[in-house]
Amino acid sequence: MSSVRRSLSRGAVSEHSLHGGDPSVLRRLNSAATLRALRDGGESTLTELARQVGLSRPTTEGVLGELTERGLVAEAPPRPGAGLGRPARRYRFRAEAGYALGIEIDAHRVRLLLTDLAGEAAGGHRADLAVDGSPAERLAAVRAAVKTCLADARVDRPSLWAVAAGTPGVIAPDGTVAFCTVVPGWEGVNLARELGRSFSCPVLVENDANLAALAERWRGAAREADDVVCVHAGLHTGMGALIGGRLHRGRWGAAGEIGMLPELGLRDTTAALITGTEVGPEAAGAVLAGIAEAGPALDDAERLLDAAGWGGAEARTVVERLAARMARGIAAMALALDPEMIVVGGPLIRAGDLLVAELRRQVRPLCLSPVRIEASELGDESVGLGAVRLALDRIDEDLFRVDRSAGDR
Amino acid sequence: MSSVRRSLSRGAVSEHSLHGGDPSVLRRLNSAATLRALRDGGESTLTELARQVGLSRPTTEGVLGELTERGLVAEAPPRPGAGLGRPARRYRFRAEAGYALGIEIDAHRVRLLLTDLAGEAAGGHRADLAVDGSPAERLAAVRAAVKTCLADARVDRPSLWAVAAGTPGVIAPDGTVAFCTVVPGWEGVNLARELGRSFSCPVLVENDANLAALAERWRGAAREADDVVCVHAGLHTGMGALIGGRLHRGRWGAAGEIGMLPELGLRDTTAALITGTEVGPEAAGAVLAGIAEAGPALDDAERLLDAAGWGGAEARTVVERLAARMARGIAAMALALDPEMIVVGGPLIRAGDLLVAELRRQVRPLCLSPVRIEASELGDESVGLGAVRLALDRIDEDLFRVDRSAGDR
Repeated sequence: MSSVRRSLSRGAVSEHSLHGGDPSVLRRLNSAATLRALRDGGESTLTELARQVGLSRPTTEGVLGELTERGLVAEAPPRPGAGLGRPARRYRFRAEAGYALGIEIDAHRVRLLLTDLAGEAAGGHRADLAVDGSPAERLAAVRAAVKTCLADARVDRPSLWAVAAGTPGVIAPDGTVAFCTVVPGWEGVNLARELGRSFSCPVLVENDANLAALAERWRGAAREADDVVCVHAGLHTGMGALIGGRLHRGRWGAAGEIGMLPELGLRDTTAALITGTEVGPEAAGAVLAGIAEAGPALDDAERLLDAAGWGGAEARTVVERLAARMARGIAAMALALDPEMIVVGGPLIRAGDLLVAELRRQVRPLCLSPVRIEASELGDESVGLGAVRLALDRIDEDLFRVDRSAGDR
Repeated sequence: MSSVRRSLSRGAVSEHSLHGGDPSVLRRLNSAATLRALRDGGESTLTELARQVGLSRPTTEGVLGELTERGLVAEAPPRPGAGLGRPARRYRFRAEAGYALGIEIDAHRVRLLLTDLAGEAAGGHRADLAVDGSPAERLAAVRAAVKTCLADARVDRPSLWAVAAGTPGVIAPDGTVAFCTVVPGWEGVNLARELGRSFSCPVLVENDANLAALAERWRGAAREADDVVCVHAGLHTGMGALIGGRLHRGRWGAAGEIGMLPELGLRDTTAALITGTEVGPEAAGAVLAGIAEAGPALDDAERLLDAAGWGGAEARTVVERLAARMARGIAAMALALDPEMIVVGGPLIRAGDLLVAELRRQVRPLCLSPVRIEASELGDESVGLGAVRLALDRIDEDLFRVDRSAGDR
C-alpha cells in the first residue's frame, strides 16, 4: 500500500506533502477521505466531517456535493428531539448504492450470499449440484441460482459492483482452477472468465479455504488476530493462512496446500473414513455401517459427525480417527507459520467441540508453540461470507483509488 | 507501520497533514527525511537535498546543522574539476558514526562480522568452540572473540550501535533459546541477556535460518523476491521465511520449524547420513567409510560433501540420499507458503550445484507450483550477514523514529 493510499485512513492531506501538488489528485484524496469517514464513522454533520477529515467547511461541502451526485452519499433523516431550532443537516454513506455477491461452489452445492456495500445481508440462495455433472452443467446451475438470488432480493444485475466465487482447489492468478481433486472435471476451467460472462462487474475467484480465512478475520474467531491458519474441514481438508492480517495466497495461489504431501494424510480425509479404508468397520462400528453403501459424499460425512455428536462410543472413535488423520497436516502448517491461532471450520465442524477438542489434544504435542485452536462460529457460511469480503475489498479498491478520475465509478 | 513512519521514505510532510501540527514532530520528520535522503541517495548539495526532501533551503540548512552536530552528517570533500568558481558544498551521511556487529554461534564455531552504518565490512573474526562446552564456556569464548574482533578493527565498544546474534533453535521473543537440539545445553539460556552484559547498545537474538533469510533478501539470491523460503542446510536443516519482503518469525519465534515433524525427516539430516543409519555403508561406500569413526560433527558433513563434489559414484549416492532426506520437509514448506523461490544455503551448500540440482529433481514433483530452487551465493557468511542486517534495521528504527526526541541518540 502506498503512502498516499495509507494516508486515506487518517484524513485528507495538504498540498505540499505527498502528491506533488496535483490538484486533481488532491480532490480525489479529499473525496476518498470524506467518503471513508462517512462510511466507517456513520452519519455526520458537515461540521463534524470537516473537523474529522481536516478540511475547511466549504471544501467539505463541495466534496459532499460531488459524492451525492455520484450516488454515494445522501442526506440522512433529521434526528427527532435534537434540540431547539432547525437541526444541522446530517449525511450518510449510501450502502445501498451497490451490492457484493459471494458464491460458494463445491462438488454438490452452490451457496450465494448478497450484501450491500456495508456488508449487510441483502439476500441469499442455495441449490444442489449434481456431483457427477459436467463443468458446463455446473456453471449453468450456478447461473440459475444467481438469477433466483437476485430476483428474490429485487437487486438488478447492474447494481452488482463485484462478485467473488470460492471453490476447492488451487486457483491460478487468472482465475483458472489449476488443481482440484474434489470437484469432478473442474481442473482447467477458467472460472473467472466463465462466471464473468454473466456480469458486467469484476469477478474474482479464490480457493474456498482462503475465503473461509478472510471470513474468520472479518466476522469470525480471528477478528483480533493477524497471523492465523484456518482449517476448512470437509471431504478434503483445506487450509488458508492470514499473515499480517492479509490473506497469503502464494506465488501461484497454492499456499496452504500442505495436505498434498501423502505423509500428512489430509487428502480425502472423510472419504477414507467413510469407506472404511482408514479405520475399518470394527472401529467405526454401527455409525459407519448405516451409511457405508452411500459412498464418500459430503452429506454422509456430515451425518457421520452429527452421529458422533450424539455421543456413542463408536462415534467418538470415528471423530478421534478423523482428528488423527488431520492432526499432522495441521501441525505441519502450525510449525511452518507459528500462527497466533488456528480456526477450524467447514462442514465437518458440525461435529463442533468434539472434533476441535480432539484436534487440540492431538495437534499440540506435535508443535513447538502452545498454539491456540478454536472452533469457527460461522458455520456453513464462512466461504460465502469470505467471498463477499473479497468482493467488498475489490469495491473499496475502486472507491478509494486516487490514481484515476474519481468519476469512473 | 504507521502512516507517519511510512511517509519518511517519500519526503518531508507539511504541517497540516499527518501529525496534527506538533512542531517537534515536524522537526523530527524533516530531520529523518533529510538523513534518509543523504544515506540512500549519496552525497548531495544543499539545493539538491532541499528539492529532494521538499523543504525550503533555510529549513534544510537548519536540519543539516543539527544532523552535523549529532555526528550523522559531514561535509564531503569538494569534487575536483566541477566547473568554474567555488563549487557548492556537498554533504554526506557519516556511515562511520557507528557500527553493527553480527554474531553467529553454533555448536562448534563462532563467527563475527562488523560493519559500519552503511553495511560496509569493517572487520570480522572466527573462533572454534568446544562442541561439549557448557553454555558459560561457550559465552566466554564468544566474548573473547568479540574483544579480538573489535581490537583488530580498532572499533571501541561505545561505537557499537546494535548487536545481533544468530543461533540454531527456536528463540523466544525475550531472546531465550526456547528449543534447541543442535547446541548442547543451549536450551533455556537467555542469550539476549547474557550477551547484553557485554554491550551498552541493544542486543538482538534470532534463529540462524531466519537470519540467513534476511541476508539472502539483502545481498543474496532473494534480492528481488518478496516471498521466499530459505533452507539453511547443516547438521540439522533449518528454514526461514520472508513474506511480503519481511522476516516471518511467528507468534513464538518458531516459524519454519516444520522439520520437527518426524514424518518430514529434517532432524539430524547429516548425522543420520554420516553414521550410516540412513543409507547404510553399502550406499555411502568409500566416502563414508573414511570418516565414519569421527561421528556426526559438522566438519565431517562438509568433508563428506566436498568429497561428493569430486564426483565419485558413491559420493553422488550420498548427495542423492541427503536430498531425499531434505526433500519432503522443503516441499512441505513450499506447499504451505507457495513462495516465489527457495534459496538453499548453509554449510552443506559447499556441495553446491550437485545438492541443489538433486533437490530440484526431488522437491518439484512433490509441489503443486513450478517452484524456483536456487543455491545461495553467500557461502558460510549468510547467518553473520543476516545478523548485521537485523542490527542495522534496529539502528534504522532508532535513527528514523519520530515519536521521541531526535536527540536521544
